Amino acid sequence: MSKEIRLGTVAIIGVGLIGGSLAKALKGADATEHIIGLDDAKSVLHRALALNVIDEIGNWSDLSRADIIILATPVDALFAVFQQLATVSLKPGAVVSDVGSTKTSVLAALQNAFGHIPAWFVPAHPIAGREKSGVDEAVEDLFVRHKVIVTTLAQTDDKALGTISKMWHAVGAEVTFLPVAEHDAILGATSHLPHVLAYLLVDMLAQDLNHDEIFHYAAGGFRDFTRIASSDPVMWRDICIHNPEVLQDLLRRYRERIAKFEYLLMQKDRDAIEQLFQRAKTARDNHYNKIQNE
Amino acid sequence: MSKEIRLGTVAIIGVGLIGGSLAKALKGADATEHIIGLDDAKSVLHRALALNVIDEIGNWSDLSRADIIILATPVDALFAVFQQLATVSLKPGAVVSDVGSTKTSVLAALQNAFGHIPAWFVPAHPIAGREKSGVDEAVEDLFVRHKVIVTTLAQTDDKALGTISKMWHAVGAEVTFLPVAEHDAILGATSHLPHVLAYLLVDMLAQDLNHDEIFHYAAGGFRDFTRIASSDPVMWRDICIHNPEVLQDLLRRYRERIAKFEYLLMQKDRDAIEQLFQRAKTARDNHYNKIQNE
Repeated sequence: MSKEIRLGTVAIIGVGLIGGSLAKALKGADATEHIIGLDDAKSVLHRALALNVIDEIGNWSDLSRADIIILATPVDALFAVFQQLATVSLKPGAVVSDVGSTKTSVLAALQNAFGHIPAWFVPAHPIAGREKSGVDEAVEDLFVRHKVIVTTLAQTDDKALGTISKMWHAVGAEVTFLPVAEHDAILGATSHLPHVLAYLLVDMLAQDLNHDEIFHYAAGGFRDFTRIASSDPVMWRDICIHNPEVLQDLLRRYRERIAKFEYLLMQKDRDAIEQLFQRAKTARDNHYNKIQNE
Repeated sequence: MSKEIRLGTVAIIGVGLIGGSLAKALKGADATEHIIGLDDAKSVLHRALALNVIDEIGNWSDLSRADIIILATPVDALFAVFQQLATVSLKPGAVVSDVGSTKTSVLAALQNAFGHIPAWFVPAHPIAGREKSGVDEAVEDLFVRHKVIVTTLAQTDDKALGTISKMWHAVGAEVTFLPVAEHDAILGATSHLPHVLAYLLVDMLAQDLNHDEIFHYAAGGFRDFTRIASSDPVMWRDICIHNPEVLQDLLRRYRERIAKFEYLLMQKDRDAIEQLFQRAKTARDNHYNKIQNE
């Protein structure tokens, strides 16, 4: 991590796992002068101050002192946060960014609050997380070698984009760019859909047969497959609600694939089943072997 | 592992990952006098002999010298194996067992070959494996602290049951008992269904959008969720084909759960979605926390 990046005063709204880890990482990289924390839960802020994750407990008016404002609340809270933000007089040159997993809905909330998409807003999404949540779980290296997707908009100021890129670079992340719709489609497919499928499977099996027995005989494959079903239910509820069209389309198409497979099974179509499994294995192996060689 | 278990001569039909690992483990535990290997592929047997996994390359008539015969071929091959086995004159008191992931179909093949279920056959299923396959991947500790499910039948001789239990105990496994139908239902739910779901997801995503991009932005959760899609396609095709009723029922009910979730999403039913996710998280966390504390 570079020690030569100076970002001034950073305000973080929502000091949970992501916001707290960003604060810790920025301090670890010595990249900020001062970190102000805001959160609906005062207890969280006192804890964050005690843990030295933030330097100051702030309120909305304190945002006018910030050079960078990071919205690290659940996506569901951003609608209200943008309404509040619209009442604050920002410091000239200040940059605002978020960490939301869905981008179409974040930008709709922003548009709703400001009547347009301000040039100082840089929509960003760090692809990092843990099954655990809360400031006590925050870790300094959460973003190291992880991707941060910045969704590109014609309105965004280049300088603002540069500032946010620099910030994520300072904490060891790799910034990459995607159009908004593509971000939501790709994340819907590789993250939102698998989470829903894992939750649905565990819920079905837990309600089936004898609950204990079902899991008692499960092997390591099941443990890995269902790990994401231990993720924060409220956060994932919000993500689903905020990417509904993409997710509904994926779920519908996945259901159709299952139905086709049931037909193959009924027909005992060994060749088609083997080809399907082989295609999937090859696609996955190719990708992860490529990563290993990078 | 106990050093006091003496199993005499063991014949292993199918010297792949499971058969090879069992042979290695039995040798490591010093539990056998002699291991005979049989396999359709002569190159596999020469390799197994060179690796000192087996002591002798055998053929069908050599089975009359074995005290224990383990059928470790893919389940699909068992139909033909049982036909061959019916032509062999077994040593008095010899015990035959398998390692198949599906039990209803194995017993149907046995019934077909012998006209009844012989008392010397002990249906067994070690819950162990790796994504890799073949004798070169065989490891001595594959079964240590893993469960072996023996499916209980009225016909099975108690002495035969005791011999097979002792064998698995010798290689560090924990023997447990389940009725045949329950075995197939539980394994269908916790193993066969997740494998099919992972293969179907990876195949759908690989065919969608830009192949490389889809996986490029995937996080650790996706990697874990899809790990089982790297499993052996032929083995999993066979398992699916051999547990069709259970699997079709599970797939149909899972499809219905997805459709219900799509409806919740369309209705933006936040409470119902959160409750579903919370139920799943609690079920999974409870189980794996319990395991950790054991």
